[in-house]
Amino acid sequence: MFRPYLKRASYYETDQMGVVHHSNFIRWFEDSRIDYLDQAGFTYKRMEELDAMLPVMEVTCKYKKSVRFSDDVYITTKIVGFNGFRMDLEYQVIDAHTLEICATGTSLHCFFSHEMKPLRTKKSHPEIYEVFSSRCGLDMYEIKPL
Amino acid sequence: MFRPYLKRASYYETDQMGVVHHSNFIRWFEDSRIDYLDQAGFTYKRMEELDAMLPVMEVTCKYKKSVRFSDDVYITTKIVGFNGFRMDLEYQVIDAHTLEICATGTSLHCFFSHEMKPLRTKKSHPEIYEVFSSRCGLDMYEIKPL
Amino acid sequence: MFRPYLKRASYYETDQMGVVHHSNFIRWFEDSRIDYLDQAGFTYKRMEELDAMLPVMEVTCKYKKSVRFSDDVYITTKIVGFNGFRMDLEYQVIDAHTLEICATGTSLHCFFSHEMKPLRTKKSHPEIYEVFSSRCGLDMYEIKPL
Amino acid sequence: MFRPYLKRASYYETDQMGVVHHSNFIRWFEDSRIDYLDQAGFTYKRMEELDAMLPVMEVTCKYKKSVRFSDDVYITTKIVGFNGFRMDLEYQVIDAHTLEICATGTSLHCFFSHEMKPLRTKKSHPEIYEVFSSRCGLDMYEIKPL
Repeated sequence: MFRPYLKRASYYETDQMGVVHHSNFIRWFEDSRIDYLDQAGFTYKRMEELDAMLPVMEVTCKYKKSVRFSDDVYITTKIVGFNGFRMDLEYQVIDAHTLEICATGTSLHCFFSHEMKPLRTKKSHPEIYEVFSSRCGLDMYEIKPL
Repeated sequence: MFRPYLKRASYYETDQMGVVHHSNFIRWFEDSRIDYLDQAGFTYKRMEELDAMLPVMEVTCKYKKSVRFSDDVYITTKIVGFNGFRMDLEYQVIDAHTLEICATGTSLHCFFSHEMKPLRTKKSHPEIYEVFSSRCGLDMYEIKPL
Repeated sequence: MFRPYLKRASYYETDQMGVVHHSNFIRWFEDSRIDYLDQAGFTYKRMEELDAMLPVMEVTCKYKKSVRFSDDVYITTKIVGFNGFRMDLEYQVIDAHTLEICATGTSLHCFFSHEMKPLRTKKSHPEIYEVFSSRCGLDMYEIKPL
Repeated sequence: MFRPYLKRASYYETDQMGVVHHSNFIRWFEDSRIDYLDQAGFTYKRMEELDAMLPVMEVTCKYKKSVRFSDDVYITTKIVGFNGFRMDLEYQVIDAHTLEICATGTSLHCFFSHEMKPLRTKKSHPEIYEVFSSRCGLDMYEIKPL
């Protein structure tokens, strides 16, 4: 099991409505995604060594409940689709005390080399293929209230 | 006709891939939306006076072509749906020199009073209803290369 | 003793030089300052209840060593001056593994009520005065490499 | 004469105090500095071609008057010291309607090659030396209310 990514909302992330600005959720998805990849054994450094990049092609977010300054939230990442080239991820932003869902989202990524050559990882990087295809569809986190 | 919102990508908006970080497009959509509302006669101040708020319920972005430091882009806003309560917007991020599309996106908003009471603007704010329903589906901008 | 504030540099905090953009250090100072106030017993909520605000009047930062994506840093806060109204703080950004200093900084704050009336806390809020004057000049952290 | 850099405060730049978060002024200084360099003929691209970098070594900001969402401000840059290697800049954030000063600041930069070799531009890049030493101490802007 993975630890869910824990974030305390910063003061500078709020806006004049008194809540965390909606754009920051897209940033938190990235923090959670990087933490997921780390826990799966694919740090950014390791990905670079393997000449595998995973740029964001699409992102979505639905806002359910405001997050306020100093609130603690978990941000979870789940692989919901992976064909060796394209990876679909889902995110949840969860109040770490009440476990209420504050937002959900998705991102779509494709594997490329640094020269932007598409990577069919099943052939080019079987090690990557194995790790992500085996986790596809699985909830990796054990989530307990803080 | 409206002026499209013009933005020069800031250095601090880039990331270590050497391109504008994807989260900033969500912020640029907001800048463009506010500029659209201004040009339509509904500044934030005016909306406040009318006790009408328009929070973001959902946002999406598809990335087509990187934007780099110092690039000039237009960000356009288009109302594609409006029923008096719910408003659907579409955005384009367009290279201001080549007019290539760098990204497209959407946002969904609903009208609320400051006490978070849903507003059926056709009845509660006919002035708002008129302005937005008359523009729904229309491309408001004249876009020419810089 | 206090825990030093621990931060892992986010991807979105980097710029195209491949390092954390210098403006983010000012934000990290704030995160550390808020954490310090929390540990001292003065959460933002508590300060609000006491009608005491502490806006930033000045800020400085000197950059010594780049921080890169995914680096872990401690950010420490120290009260170096306090006369009941004005508070001078010093910060260090420290590589959490090597304990090298990456940046140092300062901020100047003054106590105000929400109506922006200056607060002489020795009289108006002796509880605040006591806590901050007793810590003035002290290093509150025990810092060990991660 | 140069045009002062004009900025309209974005919604996402505000914080829950209802004013532009203080960290954004450091970003605006950068926008203004880049605009100054552009107007002086030294775009980032040109600097890169000349293998001359100008990283930030120190930054300071004093806050005088809040800037609010949608306010228009000028941000000016002035070279106040230049010895061929080290450059000292001063900034003003000015309400573009009233010309009141909202903030002042400084930054310190040194010239380096991409391999981080210090550049004595008087010898290594006389063209750079000439442009900046001739502007040192001069107010380059004509500032009129919007």
